[in-house]
Amino acid sequence: MKQNESSGRRAGRPISSRTVTIAGVLAGGAVLVAAGTAWASVPNETQFVLNTFSFLIWGALIMWMCAGFTMLESGSVRTKNASVICLKNIGLYSIAGLAYYLIGYNLMYVEVPEGGWIGTIDLFYGPSADELALLGGDESAKAAVLDQGYATMSDWFFQMVFVATAASIVSGTLAERVKLWSFFIFITILTAIVYPIVGAWTWGGGWLAGMGFQDFAGSTIVHSTGGWAALAGAMVVGARRGKFRADGTVRPSTPSNIPSVTLGVFILWLGWFGFNGGSQLALAGTVDAVAMSNVLVNTNLAAAAGVMAAISVSRPILGRIDLLAGLNGAIAGLVAITAGPDIVDHYWAIIIGAIGGIICTAGLRFLDAVKIDDVVGAVPAHMFAGVWGTLAVCIAGGAEFWVQLVGVVSIGAFVFVVSWILWTVIEKTVGVRVSPTVEQLGQDAAELGMESYPEFVVMPEPDDFEELQRDE
Amino acid sequence: MKQNESSGRRAGRPISSRTVTIAGVLAGGAVLVAAGTAWASVPNETQFVLNTFSFLIWGALIMWMCAGFTMLESGSVRTKNASVICLKNIGLYSIAGLAYYLIGYNLMYVEVPEGGWIGTIDLFYGPSADELALLGGDESAKAAVLDQGYATMSDWFFQMVFVATAASIVSGTLAERVKLWSFFIFITILTAIVYPIVGAWTWGGGWLAGMGFQDFAGSTIVHSTGGWAALAGAMVVGARRGKFRADGTVRPSTPSNIPSVTLGVFILWLGWFGFNGGSQLALAGTVDAVAMSNVLVNTNLAAAAGVMAAISVSRPILGRIDLLAGLNGAIAGLVAITAGPDIVDHYWAIIIGAIGGIICTAGLRFLDAVKIDDVVGAVPAHMFAGVWGTLAVCIAGGAEFWVQLVGVVSIGAFVFVVSWILWTVIEKTVGVRVSPTVEQLGQDAAELGMESYPEFVVMPEPDDFEELQRDE
Amino acid sequence: MKQNESSGRRAGRPISSRTVTIAGVLAGGAVLVAAGTAWASVPNETQFVLNTFSFLIWGALIMWMCAGFTMLESGSVRTKNASVICLKNIGLYSIAGLAYYLIGYNLMYVEVPEGGWIGTIDLFYGPSADELALLGGDESAKAAVLDQGYATMSDWFFQMVFVATAASIVSGTLAERVKLWSFFIFITILTAIVYPIVGAWTWGGGWLAGMGFQDFAGSTIVHSTGGWAALAGAMVVGARRGKFRADGTVRPSTPSNIPSVTLGVFILWLGWFGFNGGSQLALAGTVDAVAMSNVLVNTNLAAAAGVMAAISVSRPILGRIDLLAGLNGAIAGLVAITAGPDIVDHYWAIIIGAIGGIICTAGLRFLDAVKIDDVVGAVPAHMFAGVWGTLAVCIAGGAEFWVQLVGVVSIGAFVFVVSWILWTVIEKTVGVRVSPTVEQLGQDAAELGMESYPEFVVMPEPDDFEELQRDE
Repeated sequence: MKQNESSGRRAGRPISSRTVTIAGVLAGGAVLVAAGTAWASVPNETQFVLNTFSFLIWGALIMWMCAGFTMLESGSVRTKNASVICLKNIGLYSIAGLAYYLIGYNLMYVEVPEGGWIGTIDLFYGPSADELALLGGDESAKAAVLDQGYATMSDWFFQMVFVATAASIVSGTLAERVKLWSFFIFITILTAIVYPIVGAWTWGGGWLAGMGFQDFAGSTIVHSTGGWAALAGAMVVGARRGKFRADGTVRPSTPSNIPSVTLGVFILWLGWFGFNGGSQLALAGTVDAVAMSNVLVNTNLAAAAGVMAAISVSRPILGRIDLLAGLNGAIAGLVAITAGPDIVDHYWAIIIGAIGGIICTAGLRFLDAVKIDDVVGAVPAHMFAGVWGTLAVCIAGGAEFWVQLVGVVSIGAFVFVVSWILWTVIEKTVGVRVSPTVEQLGQDAAELGMESYPEFVVMPEPDDFEELQRDE
Repeated sequence: MKQNESSGRRAGRPISSRTVTIAGVLAGGAVLVAAGTAWASVPNETQFVLNTFSFLIWGALIMWMCAGFTMLESGSVRTKNASVICLKNIGLYSIAGLAYYLIGYNLMYVEVPEGGWIGTIDLFYGPSADELALLGGDESAKAAVLDQGYATMSDWFFQMVFVATAASIVSGTLAERVKLWSFFIFITILTAIVYPIVGAWTWGGGWLAGMGFQDFAGSTIVHSTGGWAALAGAMVVGARRGKFRADGTVRPSTPSNIPSVTLGVFILWLGWFGFNGGSQLALAGTVDAVAMSNVLVNTNLAAAAGVMAAISVSRPILGRIDLLAGLNGAIAGLVAITAGPDIVDHYWAIIIGAIGGIICTAGLRFLDAVKIDDVVGAVPAHMFAGVWGTLAVCIAGGAEFWVQLVGVVSIGAFVFVVSWILWTVIEKTVGVRVSPTVEQLGQDAAELGMESYPEFVVMPEPDDFEELQRDE
Repeated sequence: MKQNESSGRRAGRPISSRTVTIAGVLAGGAVLVAAGTAWASVPNETQFVLNTFSFLIWGALIMWMCAGFTMLESGSVRTKNASVICLKNIGLYSIAGLAYYLIGYNLMYVEVPEGGWIGTIDLFYGPSADELALLGGDESAKAAVLDQGYATMSDWFFQMVFVATAASIVSGTLAERVKLWSFFIFITILTAIVYPIVGAWTWGGGWLAGMGFQDFAGSTIVHSTGGWAALAGAMVVGARRGKFRADGTVRPSTPSNIPSVTLGVFILWLGWFGFNGGSQLALAGTVDAVAMSNVLVNTNLAAAAGVMAAISVSRPILGRIDLLAGLNGAIAGLVAITAGPDIVDHYWAIIIGAIGGIICTAGLRFLDAVKIDDVVGAVPAHMFAGVWGTLAVCIAGGAEFWVQLVGVVSIGAFVFVVSWILWTVIEKTVGVRVSPTVEQLGQDAAELGMESYPEFVVMPEPDDFEELQRDE
């Protein structure tokens, strides 16, 4: 079992003034006197507590995003598949937590060589030896613990909710036709191996970090990763029956519960304050507090701009004012700002978010044109907007365009290819797709033997039958 | 673009012992020795971090209140209007954030003259020059940043979610008949101009602050402002068709989804801990921590008392034990305590909350009697209870009655008159009300071309047709 | 009115190194120098602020669990009883807060004699005299306030949300047939007297604390207490009509809204981070930060393991992959780890949670076999898993088996017997159960005169009539 020997995401980011602050205090003691003004700095034990607490409370809000994905997706599918999507979501969060504990974190963060590709292949993760000694009453271990900067498992907790977010993206795209256990198999490998490898390249301190790739909270590392995995799945699994009609028209998805979708987006928006704010990775002093504030404001402005831009362009692009475009626009704005909320000016956050919202709205049309069936629009919202956001960091001068492009392409290619292989292997072995009968009947009844809303009278789907007969 | 030159809401509040604490630490360094007992005070950089973090985390919970309003309102309207109310809510939150960034904050908080009416008319807002210098690596700017007391944009974030709350109140009252874009126009002006002007009078340090008007977290400034704007809208827009029958009877509103309404109230209750707790505006020392604790307890007790009082009087007033009265009672109790949760004793919080709940329950009847159609009861819950709560501060000896009355009346008159003019102008130009056909068909289908629950079989509204034919 | 004279839950726990930290800082001032390494400790005013804030923010998340129970329960009952269960839940939270303020806290925490059974019988609770003096501007009171370690009412707030949690467990089990006001009467006594007495034995510093009984956040004290009270109620009130058929078969419960149940579980999971994390009772230094981090990770791992174990065994035990088993498994995993998340290793958390999930799934069958009708499975999830979790603390070597057993049995016996007597007295006086007609019609229509989903077409329950006629 590996102990904490890595400092988490820091490696991949330029030395921040936060680090300077910690070092300064360690060297100079608790009271610093700046020229002309007396001020008292944060003692390093206080820094340790605040850094740790920041991971925990923001991490808890990020966990809440899983509920957001669940409400968004269960409201987006037909009633006959709502329970299965609930199970997929609570299951994927559970699997992600266990897999990241068993293998993932070590692979992503522990002893990643400079310029390297992966960390340690080892089982389990836990508190540092110094922490265990301190908890056991050995006060002499305290200095070493303080040197860590934060509690080991607070960082683990924070990183774990990120892998769960990446996994959540996949379930929405593939809803209504992917088999429950096949989905769980893919999620296990995604969260234990695929995401951790990609993460090691940048946040773990690997080769992309060495190049200077900038991705503050994961426009690419988290959201595009989820989006590429979902896209590969959508291509292997195929569209829902009747989605793309024989005459070339597209049958629109009709979410079964719009208020539930809206609630899901509000939950995601709230959770994103933790996602981006907590990604400052510290709350140890003035610089962190200022930066975290700017991050939250940029996050909110980008989302707001994403909503308004998406509904404004929804009429020309989609033919009507579209609530779903607005809701996806919020997510796209959030995804787009996630790569650089710490460095862009507030008005740039508005522009980046607005363009994210427009890209997402247009992307929904594009996927229809290429006959890829993404039930909730997760690929446009998380991947298209994620690519845009990662490249947009260059605007603020904080990153080089070609480096960002290398990051976007390399991570995209790796995740897409590996996911495509995985989905294909699953297809050839246990199968990825439910039978036409199950799809018609609904996964709830067929796979779980239950209904999501058993007392409510739900309309039959007569055109389904006709279309399917016509198509086949 | 204006930098941070104002200290936010502080100006409107009496010099708190918190300020003394900060000053003491600045003068005396990190270690103070009180007579007979050694204790170590909070270093001022730690104060900066804690003040900032308090704004951010409580502010995030307040943003969550927008989800509460959304669930409350989408569950309160008929299914045929649920999607439009979702769009209005996520739209108003987006607009509020953008408008407050573009214009609102400057108007409310920046350079409000002593005894003045408004702040600066200027575009945009952002971090202070010192903060930008510090983020850029200039450590010499740190002392000046610390003197701010908190990060500039953390305060902006916290104030922004308040303006969104005021705007949220309007959507519920006017649900089911106000046009989408007309509503958005009103919200833009409310959040960019009207609310900021009212806010400048007290929290910005203007003339009401000079008189000693007390409104800790906004019973009047936020909730009554929203309520008066909603009332003006309800009068200009008019009641839903069929609400007040020709024979003088009132057709009761039938919320379409009671668990959703209940969830909304729980969300508001949770968010209110941030709303009132964060309004201590600091977490810098003992006094703040003690005060914030008392505030949260008072907030909770008032809400609890509001619930129990409202359901207890619902039988005599409304003729039956009424869940909706209880839910509105929670909100009314919360609104009522919001003006003075820092200074009233805990048992007074119970009394204030209980009376708030009763006023709200009776107010629902009153609105019916004067034929004003408030779909969710926002006017009684937010404005009637807000007036009561603002006056109730006098009970605790913390405010003079006539000063509180001047605040309540002046803010009420200003908001009501300006809102009435605005709604009337909108009516004369683009129109405020959907056509009878759209109202009958539902705004979801007519304005968005969608249904909120397309698979569920929903009952037709036969009596609607009859009533409307009979009335017209 | 009693002032704060007790230190809350601490008494029942072994002297933690946290206490050592505080004492050390008080003695030594703000800067400690450990051998060989300079580090600056947390000043005690900072400790005061952090301890207090931990109670407040985690407490707010625990309050949110009441919304979780509400969504879980309103989704689990039939549509005809969903509004009443909403009212029961917001009502019980309100009653719990008022009753705990009026009587409960004093009984549980104030002046509990060493080895004693109850605290003080006295009305009201409030800030300490020193706090009131400090708020009034008397800076000389500050040292005494700092000696408290945290703000008095922050602790009250944190303890209050725990009593509400215990009460929430009861409403689910007894749904669909217990009278509204009878339920409220029971809850009033449970939260004012029964739970506080049980709490005084351990957390108040009474006789079980003296024996060394370990229950970190209340597997037994909160969850089993709620479970035993619910079990007694289920036995006195009896099963829903038609639940246990004359032919010996069991009519399965069919939740009316599965996504709502799922949302409820996610809310509970999130709130549990506050429930267990906040139960560290301090955030004053390194030890607390490390311990709180380990607690959150164990909490999450146990829940994840509970989900996966429960759905894995649901096929052999229940005959199909069962989402509801998985959701209850999450709760059971959370309950099981709650007694010792601070001391067990992470892999033990997985094992403890998994076994909790299995026990819960099997327990659902067991209750059916003994013909006890628990609508939401609260008894298996909260009581069976709570007993398991409390005994499982012994595994980690942190507790003696017989002591844990004495705690489990004594608390169980006390709560069950007292609850049974209470329910019986209520039955003999005002009655506990609605009439068969009301049960058939639904409590919403009969007790509240409303419907939960009035526009949705809901299926009649034809088999109900047949069964009831056949059974009677």
